Amino acid sequence: MSDRLSGATRLFPIIGDPIRYVESPTRLTRTFAQRDHNGLCVPMQVPAGDLDVVMAGLTAALNVDGILVTMPHKFTAFAHCATSSERARMLGVVSVIRRNPDGTWHGDMLDGLAFVKAQRDHGAQLEGARVLLVGAGGAGSAIAIALLEAGVGELVIHDADESRVATLLKLVDDLGRGRVSAGPPDPTGCDVVCNATPLGMDDGDPLPVDPALLTSAMFVGDVIAGHGVTPFLAAAQAAGCRTANGGHMVEAAQDVMADFLLLTADAAEG
Amino acid sequence: MSDRLSGATRLFPIIGDPIRYVESPTRLTRTFAQRDHNGLCVPMQVPAGDLDVVMAGLTAALNVDGILVTMPHKFTAFAHCATSSERARMLGVVSVIRRNPDGTWHGDMLDGLAFVKAQRDHGAQLEGARVLLVGAGGAGSAIAIALLEAGVGELVIHDADESRVATLLKLVDDLGRGRVSAGPPDPTGCDVVCNATPLGMDDGDPLPVDPALLTSAMFVGDVIAGHGVTPFLAAAQAAGCRTANGGHMVEAAQDVMADFLLLTADAAEG
Repeated sequence: MSDRLSGATRLFPIIGDPIRYVESPTRLTRTFAQRDHNGLCVPMQVPAGDLDVVMAGLTAALNVDGILVTMPHKFTAFAHCATSSERARMLGVVSVIRRNPDGTWHGDMLDGLAFVKAQRDHGAQLEGARVLLVGAGGAGSAIAIALLEAGVGELVIHDADESRVATLLKLVDDLGRGRVSAGPPDPTGCDVVCNATPLGMDDGDPLPVDPALLTSAMFVGDVIAGHGVTPFLAAAQAAGCRTANGGHMVEAAQDVMADFLLLTADAAEG
Repeated sequence: MSDRLSGATRLFPIIGDPIRYVESPTRLTRTFAQRDHNGLCVPMQVPAGDLDVVMAGLTAALNVDGILVTMPHKFTAFAHCATSSERARMLGVVSVIRRNPDGTWHGDMLDGLAFVKAQRDHGAQLEGARVLLVGAGGAGSAIAIALLEAGVGELVIHDADESRVATLLKLVDDLGRGRVSAGPPDPTGCDVVCNATPLGMDDGDPLPVDPALLTSAMFVGDVIAGHGVTPFLAAAQAAGCRTANGGHMVEAAQDVMADFLLLTADAAEG
């Protein structure tokens, strides 16, 4: 995957702690190779208190074209970006950073986009759709923004913690333009159902939505990665739904990240 | 070569400017793989004025187990090492740095060792040998120390700049214990002849030693890399000498560096 590793290789570190289980070094590097770009995603284990000193070092290293940001740095890295996307500013979070032409950093939050791409890649029709989103935490908030940007017609948001829903509704008020509301986890009448809660990570978790309410016309997506087909998605498939799992989201993320990172990286390579 | 690239990969950046032509990312990474170590040597382009900020960042990144140092940082990086080898302190130069158990850096200067290993790998017998070394600059100084450490019996040093020879003689006075002297570039009576000047880099360079004075019993080594068999080595081979070229030195350097870097890196991997 990195047979092109040489002195001319461009670097895209992923910073986080812990770092040893991240998949981007393998996956994103492979995506770069598929795009014929001599780029390497390398893991960097950066404790929470050391973000500033590491960012300063990476900023000074001229062949570092971009940075992937994972926990615990997603919030704090935002402050290192001179510019950012609107969705990153709304959330105060960045998942990925690339160089501006002047060497400063431009941040974006692509987790929601990756989720949306995974749904579309597996057959979801989002434009004008009625969507139930269960989970209004970090992942759910990013996905809500991405779904609205993707042109869904109506977005119903549920979270067991109602204050989270209220916060998210306020956050997407402008973007939503009357399309967003709070509601129960009832998919009746929805075209697309999205799980953005951690339910499905552990054996014996309750399902985020009652599967008896799913019908075969619905598309069902899940953020849970690394667990294959979750019990919720298995139930959705049994109901005849098409589905996309968290692994598909991780897969889609590589393309979304490469699109973002190579937009200026190629220009910098000369 | 880096099929094992993952979140668990240990990093060994090579810092320098320019960086795109360095071969260590390819070669040292391959050597790590041959030793079944999940380590990656990645290029980092670090301008002269940015060494401090980059070193601070790399120090904070916990999966950075070592650093290779090339121009323009070989002198300045020395100050970042809490501990160092005697030869590094003699020269005030480091070519490679690894972690101490407390996370600080230990520096060494391995260029001379790599040269010595290349000579031995190609048949040179150094213990007790009479050696002519032409060139008393940075490379020559490192080689002089390594030859003395390797147990040569007598070392004659020549440089067109006599002040360099005087400085080097003073530097190795303790180590040399009467074995070292200044002399003309005349190999008569020598067992080993070493070129540590840049002669041979450019077409039309004069030869560092008159090849008419070489005999088949002599071993002849050259530091010039990337130029294959130099005119000097071609003349030596024509005289029946066994030889080692700069490419062999670069090759030997990978093993010497891996030996040094993995001494504590393996312990840190757990």
